[in-house]
Amino acid sequence: MQKYICIVLLLLAFPFIFSHAKRTNPDKPCKHFTVYYHTVIFNGTNTANATAAVVREPTKFWNTSFGQMVIFDSPLTKGQSLLSTPIGRAQGLYFYDMKMRVGSWFAYSLLFNSTEHKGIINIMGANLMHEETRDLSIVGGTGDFFMARGIVTFRTEDVDIPRYFRLQMDVKLYECY
Amino acid sequence: MQKYICIVLLLLAFPFIFSHAKRTNPDKPCKHFTVYYHTVIFNGTNTANATAAVVREPTKFWNTSFGQMVIFDSPLTKGQSLLSTPIGRAQGLYFYDMKMRVGSWFAYSLLFNSTEHKGIINIMGANLMHEETRDLSIVGGTGDFFMARGIVTFRTEDVDIPRYFRLQMDVKLYECY
Amino acid sequence: MQKYICIVLLLLAFPFIFSHAKRTNPDKPCKHFTVYYHTVIFNGTNTANATAAVVREPTKFWNTSFGQMVIFDSPLTKGQSLLSTPIGRAQGLYFYDMKMRVGSWFAYSLLFNSTEHKGIINIMGANLMHEETRDLSIVGGTGDFFMARGIVTFRTEDVDIPRYFRLQMDVKLYECY
Repeated sequence: MQKYICIVLLLLAFPFIFSHAKRTNPDKPCKHFTVYYHTVIFNGTNTANATAAVVREPTKFWNTSFGQMVIFDSPLTKGQSLLSTPIGRAQGLYFYDMKMRVGSWFAYSLLFNSTEHKGIINIMGANLMHEETRDLSIVGGTGDFFMARGIVTFRTEDVDIPRYFRLQMDVKLYECY
Repeated sequence: MQKYICIVLLLLAFPFIFSHAKRTNPDKPCKHFTVYYHTVIFNGTNTANATAAVVREPTKFWNTSFGQMVIFDSPLTKGQSLLSTPIGRAQGLYFYDMKMRVGSWFAYSLLFNSTEHKGIINIMGANLMHEETRDLSIVGGTGDFFMARGIVTFRTEDVDIPRYFRLQMDVKLYECY
Repeated sequence: MQKYICIVLLLLAFPFIFSHAKRTNPDKPCKHFTVYYHTVIFNGTNTANATAAVVREPTKFWNTSFGQMVIFDSPLTKGQSLLSTPIGRAQGLYFYDMKMRVGSWFAYSLLFNSTEHKGIINIMGANLMHEETRDLSIVGGTGDFFMARGIVTFRTEDVDIPRYFRLQMDVKLYECY
């Protein structure tokens, strides 16, 4: 009889052992998907198409856009093309904060409104543009992403600065509720 | 004898089972209270009363205040009235980041200094003003709110833009220490 | 036989009991170290030495630098001296947001690239300069600091505003992976 109680206990304990173990492994997120972020900077005439605007020009103290600040309300798509299925928007801000190289810092939300996902993911961190991929922190979420934590990995896909750029954003959650 | 050990073990396991379960339920925060946030924008003459100032005017590329940035040092009260008991301050920044509708993005701290609460809660997220309530992320805290995580729900209570607005901020912590 | 299973179970349960207990004690971080942050504000001529620049002047509505915004790319050192071993950089932004006293609000990353640490820590929170020490929130991390959470305690060490200031940043992680 006690033997069975012990076995039941062991089974009860397992989920906790694994849920903890899972959180420690960067290769095993509890949720994982990829979205594409498209930014078209306002250039004085593209009122309809633009999805972002410079709100602070670069300081020009250094040759790295240092000090430039951009606020964006950019579409997210499931596929790479700007014309592929929209699944939400990315809203927030980035600013260039590197003196010797070109690099920026993001604080923003991913707002999903598709059949697949409804909810918000909040993100902040450095976009070290000289590296092929960059990891930013998912610090919270709401809706389907209630209380989420994780990592967003940026990869620059297409750059036609100052007119357009596309980032692949690979969303990996390690705390799911 | 083994039976008792098993029962003790089962009792030992219970808190973990429940502490985990608790974290998964949006309706059962471990701490929950409501504060009111009052912002009076500086208008050129109200030096004494103002609690916030525009540091970046709207871009005017779109009709949504896009690009406007406001820094605030605003009182928090326990009751709805600006004259009710002050319990702390909200300090930080918001900026308008929506192109088609009016909406802003907040990054700020709630600083409590009352008999009830001493400590800080740090918050970021989107304030989608077209929705009746909006959820932002509590990403950390200090003092009584050491290492807290959770959600703040905004509800606009009174708007007399550009002079004054009041937000109800419903604080729900899901990780308490 | 059952006795041994029970003992094994008890041993299995222990790490969870202790890992949870550890998280609740502010005096027992799972990782703890100190770095020094040096900021030299650009003054019009110090292009080579400057590590930060004002991107928004104070509003001057109040006598507290309210509204001033600074973007920085500042060295981190292991020792107090600006000339001691560099171990990384701090990149991000702060702005003055207090009306009655001088105080600022930070959102930034600590980027480590030394033999000891490789990875990034993301931080936000209030820098209440009238207090001897101030706690900000570590909201996430990457690399060696994968998914970290914790507290950074600021202590002003040397101020020669507007030319230079040094902060001691005491990094305490309470969630380590």
